[in-house]
Amino acid sequence: MSEVITLAHGSGGTLTHELINNIFYKYFHNEILDSENDAAVFDAQGKIAFTTDSFVITPIFFKGGNIGKLSVCGTVNDLASMGAIPKYLSCGFIIEEGLTMDELAEIVESMAKTAKDAGVKIVTGDTKVVGKGACDKVFINTTGIGFIPEGRVTGGNRAKPGDKVILTGYMGDHGTSILLEREDMGIHADLKSDCAPLSELVEKVYSVTGEVHVLRDPTRGGVATTLNEIASQSGVNIKLYEENLPVRDEVQGICDMLGMEPLYMANEGKLLVIVPGEVSQKVLEAIRSHKDGEDAAVIGEVLESQSPMVLLKTFAGGTRVVDMLTGDQLPRIC
Amino acid sequence: MSEVITLAHGSGGTLTHELINNIFYKYFHNEILDSENDAAVFDAQGKIAFTTDSFVITPIFFKGGNIGKLSVCGTVNDLASMGAIPKYLSCGFIIEEGLTMDELAEIVESMAKTAKDAGVKIVTGDTKVVGKGACDKVFINTTGIGFIPEGRVTGGNRAKPGDKVILTGYMGDHGTSILLEREDMGIHADLKSDCAPLSELVEKVYSVTGEVHVLRDPTRGGVATTLNEIASQSGVNIKLYEENLPVRDEVQGICDMLGMEPLYMANEGKLLVIVPGEVSQKVLEAIRSHKDGEDAAVIGEVLESQSPMVLLKTFAGGTRVVDMLTGDQLPRIC
Repeated sequence: MSEVITLAHGSGGTLTHELINNIFYKYFHNEILDSENDAAVFDAQGKIAFTTDSFVITPIFFKGGNIGKLSVCGTVNDLASMGAIPKYLSCGFIIEEGLTMDELAEIVESMAKTAKDAGVKIVTGDTKVVGKGACDKVFINTTGIGFIPEGRVTGGNRAKPGDKVILTGYMGDHGTSILLEREDMGIHADLKSDCAPLSELVEKVYSVTGEVHVLRDPTRGGVATTLNEIASQSGVNIKLYEENLPVRDEVQGICDMLGMEPLYMANEGKLLVIVPGEVSQKVLEAIRSHKDGEDAAVIGEVLESQSPMVLLKTFAGGTRVVDMLTGDQLPRIC
Repeated sequence: MSEVITLAHGSGGTLTHELINNIFYKYFHNEILDSENDAAVFDAQGKIAFTTDSFVITPIFFKGGNIGKLSVCGTVNDLASMGAIPKYLSCGFIIEEGLTMDELAEIVESMAKTAKDAGVKIVTGDTKVVGKGACDKVFINTTGIGFIPEGRVTGGNRAKPGDKVILTGYMGDHGTSILLEREDMGIHADLKSDCAPLSELVEKVYSVTGEVHVLRDPTRGGVATTLNEIASQSGVNIKLYEENLPVRDEVQGICDMLGMEPLYMANEGKLLVIVPGEVSQKVLEAIRSHKDGEDAAVIGEVLESQSPMVLLKTFAGGTRVVDMLTGDQLPRIC
């Protein structure tokens, strides 16, 4: 096999077949993935969640993961955020000629491992190759299907006054860590992306209560932007307590230096959970019993409002409005 | 709204929301497409076909279509080739900053129209924006779900000796037409891409017989490559009759000039149908009764073989082997 990807690997001819067999099938093999036809076939029954995400992150390898791991987590997490049990993924690769086979193999192997961890199967795929300069190394689209167990109804418009807002761990690890890798700022911090599948955490939540009002993973735009969407969709205020916000010292320090806010930094392995106040403590405990939820905290509450917004009760005791992200804090974060 | 796409349109913040509402929801609106959550939700029952495709074609606007129309047809056709009735699509956009809003709107409008023609709904999406030079104008991934009616089993490994091979119209229109648009060769031909959804044609085939052995749309690599895949998967020979191959004079002429072969040129609105010999005439008539199948022809037959290959009986009366495409005839054809 040649050592770099060439345009001919995207031709649909012999080299495409070789690439598919030697890399994609080698790592992804499962009983549904079908090398011989244009689509995967499986049985389904009941409510299905269906979601898509393209990943264009730079750099493609970073502390805590790579574009492959990220591409599986991102879509798994969007399914889990609907209360669905993630089942099947497709993956579409757009590769710049010159990417090495070793780099591609590392990405694909990492996707396979993450898929296994998350309990999903990669069942169908597509590969395109573009010339030097027509894309930046590799972009990956994953599209996912999950099954929603009967009775589960969750959504951004279901937050209710009296609900509590739980965040499953430290804010801003992914965004801050990618920023550090990208810009040569001479800052050395012991920090890595939090990139992880959230499907098990979601099941922890449902093990306590069926009444889960909102589940959402605060990726691009961070916790602040996601909560603004929820406040606006539900027609409520969300009041945050600054003293309860879980932020690592490294993240806070770097953000302070750069004039950024952890509330707007992307996360790739955190979940916002909004549940009725009376079950919030039990839900918090269930989340904390999982390795990815040990640092979970109740970060705020939902209040009635005529003009929906997100408010922050600061350390100093004041209250200020937390807007949605405007402009672009950091492009190509996912 | 700003007149060009900027990086901030991909931030997940206010400009992303504006873009989604003013362009994507405007054209795609339907009862499942949900602007407020991370996934679409719908009911399913029975066998599902699931397939993905990324589109990186250049130029993005061409005679007979654009990247948007192509992206819907491509995935619809992969579903239809499994005997499935295409139902739902996701779409993932990767946009280079600087693409104009007008260009994006034209692409999205065309996707909406094609989806309507094909009877599918675009129910979920994602938008990423990358910096100037990090991709080439716009790439689109579509991933599709189709329902397979009970009893339909078709696949590349099901061709049997005695079967006939039908092609639903002229070969190579898409590939040849894109080639002409791209290279300034001073050739003027009245030629356009055949880009079209094939779902209705597939239903025409099933209206005659349930015993449809193979359905396949010969895109990248053309009729020759697709038939080689089928021959190898089914363990048969496929013998083509040169005199029956439907090729437009323009396509043959341009291919002759450039030393290319229509058999290897990409198609985006043609279907290969392999059915038992005894029903082939009726299937041919049914296909010809549809506007996209008027020029259909029986182009060959399936023969028993120990060493699977595709053979061509030439005008001159000789027989030669038709290999799979090696190398790359024309990159970024879809």
